[in-house]
Amino acid sequence: MAPLAAENCVVCRAGAPTMTANEIEELKPQISDWKVIERDGILQLERFYAFRNFTQSLAFTNEIAALAEEVGHHPAILTEWVGVTVSWWTHKIKGLHRNDFIMAAKTDALYKGG
Amino acid sequence: MAPLAAENCVVCRAGAPTMTANEIEELKPQISDWKVIERDGILQLERFYAFRNFTQSLAFTNEIAALAEEVGHHPAILTEWVGVTVSWWTHKIKGLHRNDFIMAAKTDALYKGG
Repeated sequence: MAPLAAENCVVCRAGAPTMTANEIEELKPQISDWKVIERDGILQLERFYAFRNFTQSLAFTNEIAALAEEVGHHPAILTEWVGVTVSWWTHKIKGLHRNDFIMAAKTDALYKGG
Repeated sequence: MAPLAAENCVVCRAGAPTMTANEIEELKPQISDWKVIERDGILQLERFYAFRNFTQSLAFTNEIAALAEEVGHHPAILTEWVGVTVSWWTHKIKGLHRNDFIMAAKTDALYKGG
């Protein structure tokens, strides 16, 4: 099976099903540094990336944003001196889609350490 | 009295006192769109700025970051499609310093609407 990071996002329409617990369990090992969390009743993928200062954190934020623009799927990005926290979920379905796992893996691929 | 946005941050050392309730009450009207919140036991100033898309939000994040670098005081910035949430507090004193009110006012001055 091709790694998640090499997959492309598909168009996701409102009404598409969110991922099942089994599907999440199957893909999760490929993005082992991410947590599945629930925020405001919505499942999200979240990961903190450590950096050494605000400039490094901001540079990573901008890299993720460029990736997001490219594929048309956007995360929430918290930029702080100590690092960057990224959250992926799919607004249209208020939950997790395979696209979010693909984007989490692509975000990991951008990270070169802080 | 000069407006907060026109003041400069002063050097803040660990051990400097956090602002008193009276001091907060006195300055708060100058940054009326900000909330004083407590997160992990630390008082912070927080405001959400609405934007129309991720690109606009990211541009504002970068403007705030440039301001932060200039004065050497850095916020937490949450960048999302719908807008940007900014939090100011002073790490060294684990709370609010007059610098945070100055930076909140300067952040307001950057915002031209979403």
